[in-house]
Amino acid sequence: WANTKTDSTAPEQELLCIFGTGDLGRSLGQRLLHSGYRVVYGSRRPHSCGPLPQGAQAMSHEAAAQSASLVFLCIHREHYDFLETLAPQLQGKVLVDVSNNLKKNLYPEANAECLQRLIPGAYVVKAFNTLSAWALQNGPSDANRQVYLCGNGAEAKQAVAEVATKLGFAALDRGSLSAAKELEDFPLQLFPEWRMPLYVAVGLTAFIFVYVVIRDVVYAYVEQGEDNSFRIMVSLANKVFPIVSLIMLSLCYLPGVIAGFIQLYRGTKYRRFPDWLDRWMLCRKQLGLVALGFAFLHMVYTLIIPIRYYVIFWGSNRTSVFDTTTAWRSDSYYSMGILGFGLFLLLGITSLPSVSNALSWREFSFIQSKLGYLTVFFCTFHTYLYGWDKFLRTYKWYMPPAYMLSLVLPSVLIVLKLLLLLPCVDRSLTRIRQGWERTDTQDGSEKPLLT
Amino acid sequence: WANTKTDSTAPEQELLCIFGTGDLGRSLGQRLLHSGYRVVYGSRRPHSCGPLPQGAQAMSHEAAAQSASLVFLCIHREHYDFLETLAPQLQGKVLVDVSNNLKKNLYPEANAECLQRLIPGAYVVKAFNTLSAWALQNGPSDANRQVYLCGNGAEAKQAVAEVATKLGFAALDRGSLSAAKELEDFPLQLFPEWRMPLYVAVGLTAFIFVYVVIRDVVYAYVEQGEDNSFRIMVSLANKVFPIVSLIMLSLCYLPGVIAGFIQLYRGTKYRRFPDWLDRWMLCRKQLGLVALGFAFLHMVYTLIIPIRYYVIFWGSNRTSVFDTTTAWRSDSYYSMGILGFGLFLLLGITSLPSVSNALSWREFSFIQSKLGYLTVFFCTFHTYLYGWDKFLRTYKWYMPPAYMLSLVLPSVLIVLKLLLLLPCVDRSLTRIRQGWERTDTQDGSEKPLLT
Amino acid sequence: WANTKTDSTAPEQELLCIFGTGDLGRSLGQRLLHSGYRVVYGSRRPHSCGPLPQGAQAMSHEAAAQSASLVFLCIHREHYDFLETLAPQLQGKVLVDVSNNLKKNLYPEANAECLQRLIPGAYVVKAFNTLSAWALQNGPSDANRQVYLCGNGAEAKQAVAEVATKLGFAALDRGSLSAAKELEDFPLQLFPEWRMPLYVAVGLTAFIFVYVVIRDVVYAYVEQGEDNSFRIMVSLANKVFPIVSLIMLSLCYLPGVIAGFIQLYRGTKYRRFPDWLDRWMLCRKQLGLVALGFAFLHMVYTLIIPIRYYVIFWGSNRTSVFDTTTAWRSDSYYSMGILGFGLFLLLGITSLPSVSNALSWREFSFIQSKLGYLTVFFCTFHTYLYGWDKFLRTYKWYMPPAYMLSLVLPSVLIVLKLLLLLPCVDRSLTRIRQGWERTDTQDGSEKPLLT
Repeated sequence: WANTKTDSTAPEQELLCIFGTGDLGRSLGQRLLHSGYRVVYGSRRPHSCGPLPQGAQAMSHEAAAQSASLVFLCIHREHYDFLETLAPQLQGKVLVDVSNNLKKNLYPEANAECLQRLIPGAYVVKAFNTLSAWALQNGPSDANRQVYLCGNGAEAKQAVAEVATKLGFAALDRGSLSAAKELEDFPLQLFPEWRMPLYVAVGLTAFIFVYVVIRDVVYAYVEQGEDNSFRIMVSLANKVFPIVSLIMLSLCYLPGVIAGFIQLYRGTKYRRFPDWLDRWMLCRKQLGLVALGFAFLHMVYTLIIPIRYYVIFWGSNRTSVFDTTTAWRSDSYYSMGILGFGLFLLLGITSLPSVSNALSWREFSFIQSKLGYLTVFFCTFHTYLYGWDKFLRTYKWYMPPAYMLSLVLPSVLIVLKLLLLLPCVDRSLTRIRQGWERTDTQDGSEKPLLT
Repeated sequence: WANTKTDSTAPEQELLCIFGTGDLGRSLGQRLLHSGYRVVYGSRRPHSCGPLPQGAQAMSHEAAAQSASLVFLCIHREHYDFLETLAPQLQGKVLVDVSNNLKKNLYPEANAECLQRLIPGAYVVKAFNTLSAWALQNGPSDANRQVYLCGNGAEAKQAVAEVATKLGFAALDRGSLSAAKELEDFPLQLFPEWRMPLYVAVGLTAFIFVYVVIRDVVYAYVEQGEDNSFRIMVSLANKVFPIVSLIMLSLCYLPGVIAGFIQLYRGTKYRRFPDWLDRWMLCRKQLGLVALGFAFLHMVYTLIIPIRYYVIFWGSNRTSVFDTTTAWRSDSYYSMGILGFGLFLLLGITSLPSVSNALSWREFSFIQSKLGYLTVFFCTFHTYLYGWDKFLRTYKWYMPPAYMLSLVLPSVLIVLKLLLLLPCVDRSLTRIRQGWERTDTQDGSEKPLLT
Repeated sequence: WANTKTDSTAPEQELLCIFGTGDLGRSLGQRLLHSGYRVVYGSRRPHSCGPLPQGAQAMSHEAAAQSASLVFLCIHREHYDFLETLAPQLQGKVLVDVSNNLKKNLYPEANAECLQRLIPGAYVVKAFNTLSAWALQNGPSDANRQVYLCGNGAEAKQAVAEVATKLGFAALDRGSLSAAKELEDFPLQLFPEWRMPLYVAVGLTAFIFVYVVIRDVVYAYVEQGEDNSFRIMVSLANKVFPIVSLIMLSLCYLPGVIAGFIQLYRGTKYRRFPDWLDRWMLCRKQLGLVALGFAFLHMVYTLIIPIRYYVIFWGSNRTSVFDTTTAWRSDSYYSMGILGFGLFLLLGITSLPSVSNALSWREFSFIQSKLGYLTVFFCTFHTYLYGWDKFLRTYKWYMPPAYMLSLVLPSVLIVLKLLLLLPCVDRSLTRIRQGWERTDTQDGSEKPLLT
């Protein structure tokens, strides 16, 4: 049997070497073995280096290094020094540095760069460091499929990329070794793309909160001398949440409209947007989700109104006569709010990775843009109905009611969007987005496909 | 080093050719290179065709075509004509057509078929067109892993399927080149499987809405001359939503029961169901999710009742004496509704791709069927409790109250399901579903495994 | 063309054999063909064995077995007997047993073991049985990517693992053939990791329910002779849900704290935890999600209070004078509850497979631990505010109000957590978790990397 076996798969039995027999080293070896490689471990004490995956053998670092053309370094940076002694054996080999640090900027230079400095004769490639031992053990899953790599030798990177692909990962080249620092920071970063949206949210919340406190609590205290500070916990919170939510929702759709106007102005889609716009567009999803969170709080806070002690006590101040218009208004006001929230929720659900993955590009853009603008409209209309007729009345200390502040941005957004939807404008924008350029000089094979 | 490298992976260094250096062409080349292929680009201006992925080279179309046995066409259909001049070089090659169109039915015949007509001597295979440049760049993710392909040459398709597999995709053969049109429509379609459920939803909503408007608003206006049109926005909406939701929920479970009866009648599971039933069963998930949406709206609309101006104004009409039975009834009514909604939500969550993927088949069917029917029961019971004693009373213009309409289908469904659960019936149905046939003639090795 | 094609991929054209032409056999063959294998089917009637995937051929079992070194058995266990006659041809081959049973413990010994007994000369490997024909047809998706395998021959397992990897799956070695029984039970198990949390939930619910029934209903009936049994459906349910939810939430975070103390005491993270703690920690996610479910019910049950007949009838008992403190308290009470629930929801969302996959390890632990403890704090504080001043009053039959029971565990949890957060304690714990040991004897290369 052995021979049938051998010659059937012999050509791919490449030998790889791993330095370090820790969690990661062992998991990596396991996966390599399962993917049809032969694996040899380099260890200080080849005969007592703990349990190794079945099929792998352990040798001295020297022997191991010599035997393979590709060496994985699964060891701490603090222990790199001993590699210097192996310089001759590692001459011309591919060294894959998978190490990480405990903190950012622990060292001035990236581990991989320090390694390259130690062994100038080797081709150092930074790779696999974003994967956990766990991810290796269980094979690639949807999220940790990407293997980022960088290095100075093109052929070396190529070799590592092939190994990654064979292991079932998707290799992504991040350029020269100078990108190593960035790769080493990946596992340490904490929601980078959420930072900006959260700052905006906190800033807005703080501002609106102070605004309503002054307008509703301080004003009442100073002018009428009554203390309704207790309204802070629910009544005022429930003014802050919807306002922040609506503003952030429009912040999430504004950049798209701006981009449209820029493309119209430039007459092409192939020139990059200004950086601030790029960055803004990249965090639209996060802006939207934060806004959804605030909308959710607004809904629940609204629903508990009737069970509040304060409300139960004072009851509702009834007017003498039932007014159908008011009934219409209050009911439409609630309906708009609920429908808007429902759509908003739908947007949130479709931005779940697994759901958005399952959508075709056309479907995704339909939901996120068409339904998105419908949501904006519902929520804005909801707020207008709330304002109703007390729009230009009820100023206190020359401060307009807070909800009026929240109406500025969405109103602007809707107007701009309507401009873009004018048949003539829409037509030329569509053509631009389909690759057409006002002054078209390229030959076809260079026009990107619509995919 | 070079030579170790070479001979270790030499056998797999297959050379592939790509026509077109646009977004898609470049991304595809990148991924191919990372997967261990050599890549050559065919271009009109090999020396000025913009940035190419590192490691790939560019040649004239002729030279490129000659060098490889497999050619990817990443160019617009409008530019196919120049290929005719390459017919000799493309003779006997595999041409992979990855092109898409901007609209459906832009051309009478599929791009791939037109291509085959232009170069009869080549083996045209339609493939990769459902993938975006983005998906190629970042490697396969859970959703866009499938690569659909079709073509007339079995060997050619085989070759393309192998490339796809090596790139980490899963190849799915869709038959001969005549399927190309269908594949080219994939990226353009908009929620095909949602269409039917949405039509049903809209139709039902419209009908029920008109029904309740006539019964509650028009009737009151004509008979008592009072205008309660304002009730449309919330009161009536909140009658329509639960009714549509309940009907669609039962529509989601009905086909399963019907299928059961058909299998019982036929005594086998190996004969296909009638088309209408197949199509119905294929959109059960969508039916359920739409129903969930309506249930959600119903819940929120119910919860805002006490803060409505109308309700606050008229308050509640109290009877003179507190009736424990009524208290029991109203509370159970609410409980049933909430528990039903809770279960419904659970069903919705488990039908999220990533969640249902994580379930074993047995677990998924347990939730979707067992818990599903429990949900149906709760919701139906909830509605019966709502009706309570005013069942055969309160007709207006001979129209029964709307909620009674919603009770027909679920009641039928529950009865049918109970029939299927009768021990004797259940036993034989189970045996049929385990592959047993009333007249069993096959030998074991042809009976499908229960996996 | 043929020859270019051939020599380009010839080296990988390994031939594999499949016994059984059922659903699974056919799907498996298809996938193998697409991944670049040649496939031959073994069948009783090679010429009338129904449709086979294009490119595969069918032979007699004997011929098929002889032709390949690796044979997949896609047939029912009941039909294994005929294999005995093939013993000579199967001598020294790898037999991959993919069979499953309809029930657990249908047979005393695992299918694979029985197979090994029948053909002692072959290398039996249990594998692929956890995959459905459907999963094979459509290629690996995120959830069913793992292929578990076990067997006695290391080389044989290696060969199967390679096939699995080439098919795009991730092979996981489960050891010797004695593990086959376990693998064969996988597709049959029903939420094993949910069992314990659900038992706990049911047990707690039952206990608390009885407790409140005695305290609120029975007591009132015996002492004041009034029947408020109707309160069971909502009022009492809404006492049980939050209590169970809070207790289970703290049960979800308690093991982490305990583990911390154990590590501190041992001064290392490399020694295994006691089994009970391991098992407890493994079902933390489930504990949390069940708790979330109960919290959701609690929220909705609370929101319907004002529309209950009972409440509407008796209205609210107003005190003579409006008390700001009470207003503050009740509002903060609601706010805490809502914010706690909001955070809780966030925890639930991030534990969706696709979401948690998209998070870096650091991000995941930030949310699940930092935000998790914040949730615990909010919910506990919410309950304390509910108790407010009627803490050591209102005993009935010496039974404290139910909510007090729910406060014990979370309070203990919070205290313990605060202890762990003391700078000195925290520092040494962090060092331990970074691989440091109180008595460090290992050399660096054996210290696991922080990945």
